[in-house]
Amino acid sequence: MIHRHIKTEIMHRVVEYNGVLYFGGLVAEDCSQDMKGQTEQICKKIDNILAHFGSSKEKLITAMIYISDFSQKSGMNDSWLKWLHAEHLPTRATIGVANLGENVLVEVVISAAK
Amino acid sequence: MIHRHIKTEIMHRVVEYNGVLYFGGLVAEDCSQDMKGQTEQICKKIDNILAHFGSSKEKLITAMIYISDFSQKSGMNDSWLKWLHAEHLPTRATIGVANLGENVLVEVVISAAK
Amino acid sequence: MIHRHIKTEIMHRVVEYNGVLYFGGLVAEDCSQDMKGQTEQICKKIDNILAHFGSSKEKLITAMIYISDFSQKSGMNDSWLKWLHAEHLPTRATIGVANLGENVLVEVVISAAK
Repeated sequence: MIHRHIKTEIMHRVVEYNGVLYFGGLVAEDCSQDMKGQTEQICKKIDNILAHFGSSKEKLITAMIYISDFSQKSGMNDSWLKWLHAEHLPTRATIGVANLGENVLVEVVISAAK
Repeated sequence: MIHRHIKTEIMHRVVEYNGVLYFGGLVAEDCSQDMKGQTEQICKKIDNILAHFGSSKEKLITAMIYISDFSQKSGMNDSWLKWLHAEHLPTRATIGVANLGENVLVEVVISAAK
Repeated sequence: MIHRHIKTEIMHRVVEYNGVLYFGGLVAEDCSQDMKGQTEQICKKIDNILAHFGSSKEKLITAMIYISDFSQKSGMNDSWLKWLHAEHLPTRATIGVANLGENVLVEVVISAAK
């Protein structure tokens, strides 16, 4: 049984199947901030959405992190590691890409257990 | 139990595990078309492959959409949203990347429920 | 129940959930090698990690392969196909990206059945 949640114009932000919450790509609301700030915003968004499902950041499984300015990778890393407890870190890959949209420095795609 | 389907030289196009159909990257056959046209072709491919498994576009879970020309993103979007009913939209992330192969403007990686 | 394995500074290399082993991004140790050599190193890493869980390359489900020099794609392909038996090939997508870190030509993200 597929459960879809939080519909936007182009997607459902979360699709649930077999106990896994699959997320669409999350970007910051305020893209005037640097990568550290944009990542902080994304982490807060994840907290809010997961809380909605009775899940939390302790249940992250995977994270794909796409960044459009590799030189700011450490800023993303700082926010990410400040947000998560070491024992609950998900898997991760950070990929430097060409374009995520105007001023979008980082986009995160996660999956989590419900 | 892993079930593998539609073998090519380099992959199985679909691998099935625990009720999820995981797809390899799909690109258009005719890459002389623009992003809108290439996306339409990919959507038809997905329909055909899913039908093979008794699944359908109503059962999509996730979609990763890689595009090599961000300026044509709206063309991809048009084809994608024309193809899918609003209530069945999967999660999605659109990532602007450097290179998908000669003239390949868009590549789609999906998962679906069986 | 989520099981996390092989902790690094920034992630768990493997997170296990519902019988699936999700891997973080794997890169070569020696990035002075070309894409063919780097891919060989990654394949060996995957073998070693999977063996740890009583799994093996025969149980790969998906592979996302990010490459930062598309002109060397055939080198990646050679190593990948030499490593895997045709009947066990997972799904795959190869995405040409902007930057994977200094001298990193290829990064692989896989999932496997336990």
